[in-house]
Amino acid sequence: MSANVGPELQNLINLLAKLPGLGPRSATRVALYLLKKREGVMLPLAKAMSAAADNVKACDICGNWDSINPCAVCNDKERSRAVLCVVEDVADLWALERSGAHRGYYHVLGGLLSPLDGVGPSDINLTSLLKRANDETITEIVLALSATVDGQTTSHYLSDHLLNAGVRVTRLSQGVPIGGELDYLDEGTIAAAMKSRRQI
Amino acid sequence: MSANVGPELQNLINLLAKLPGLGPRSATRVALYLLKKREGVMLPLAKAMSAAADNVKACDICGNWDSINPCAVCNDKERSRAVLCVVEDVADLWALERSGAHRGYYHVLGGLLSPLDGVGPSDINLTSLLKRANDETITEIVLALSATVDGQTTSHYLSDHLLNAGVRVTRLSQGVPIGGELDYLDEGTIAAAMKSRRQI
Repeated sequence: MSANVGPELQNLINLLAKLPGLGPRSATRVALYLLKKREGVMLPLAKAMSAAADNVKACDICGNWDSINPCAVCNDKERSRAVLCVVEDVADLWALERSGAHRGYYHVLGGLLSPLDGVGPSDINLTSLLKRANDETITEIVLALSATVDGQTTSHYLSDHLLNAGVRVTRLSQGVPIGGELDYLDEGTIAAAMKSRRQI
Repeated sequence: MSANVGPELQNLINLLAKLPGLGPRSATRVALYLLKKREGVMLPLAKAMSAAADNVKACDICGNWDSINPCAVCNDKERSRAVLCVVEDVADLWALERSGAHRGYYHVLGGLLSPLDGVGPSDINLTSLLKRANDETITEIVLALSATVDGQTTSHYLSDHLLNAGVRVTRLSQGVPIGGELDYLDEGTIAAAMKSRRQI
């Protein structure tokens, strides 16, 4: 990156540059910031990272990441067992939690079926989902998956295999995002919004 | 930030969100990325941060940061002693090194004089600079400071105090940036570029 940066600093910058959203330039900026805030940020962050790497594990029930197992969501007895929400990734679970729209439990697939990329049913957490679906307290399974080809492939596969479990399988609605301007939306979204239009 | 994220993970996200260029949302994304790359990125990064916090120190001569002291730049005997370049910050030193435009040594002030913010001559590395300026091998001191009010205040103060040392004091030229379009430039820059126009 730059001449005459010591190997120790260069190593730090190279590792920081691997983080999503950071390039070599912003990694240099972050490294200098960290060196200025050694006691306040750098050492606590190094410790937090070591601690999280050691202690944060995937929840045995849903696949969420937490330092307790089962995770805080699965441990929350206030939630409804009726509706189970299936997501691709832990980030999606957290996004749904932020929205506050789902007050039940989750199941993290850890990926989407992708025939092109060679991701088959055995590569994601499907078996445990099919097992959970047999729990008679579950009446509905919401497939909260991305509206992409892989997301739709996975939704189709799951709805086929969940039929036997005798639960209602639903998916998120598709349409105009809140605050979205029609002018800027792609034709596919407008067509989907028109097709599933609702009476006011 | 989000409900039901464990305290250990939340602590990691809060610390990541303090880094320049990251907010709470991108910090969450970085945390999830790190958890996915524990062996490859997370643990090495934690180690690199601890090591850098312990070993990287300000160079006694110029103020640059390095794990050796004097730093790699001051240790480089190939450089010219004639021209000393004065910068505000270590980041500016690195930016100049990247440009390859200066093949001499540096002096890092660690800040700019700012009467409004109460930063006076004793708060930045001025005494050591005035001492270095008396070295008879130095013939020119380039003030590579930002073209801001504080940068110009500092430049004026320095050129006044360096007069006695018998060195030539220069500053970076101001004008149209390479690749810059006149249309998008502010009037101050255009006026400065016009004032210091040069024969082709």
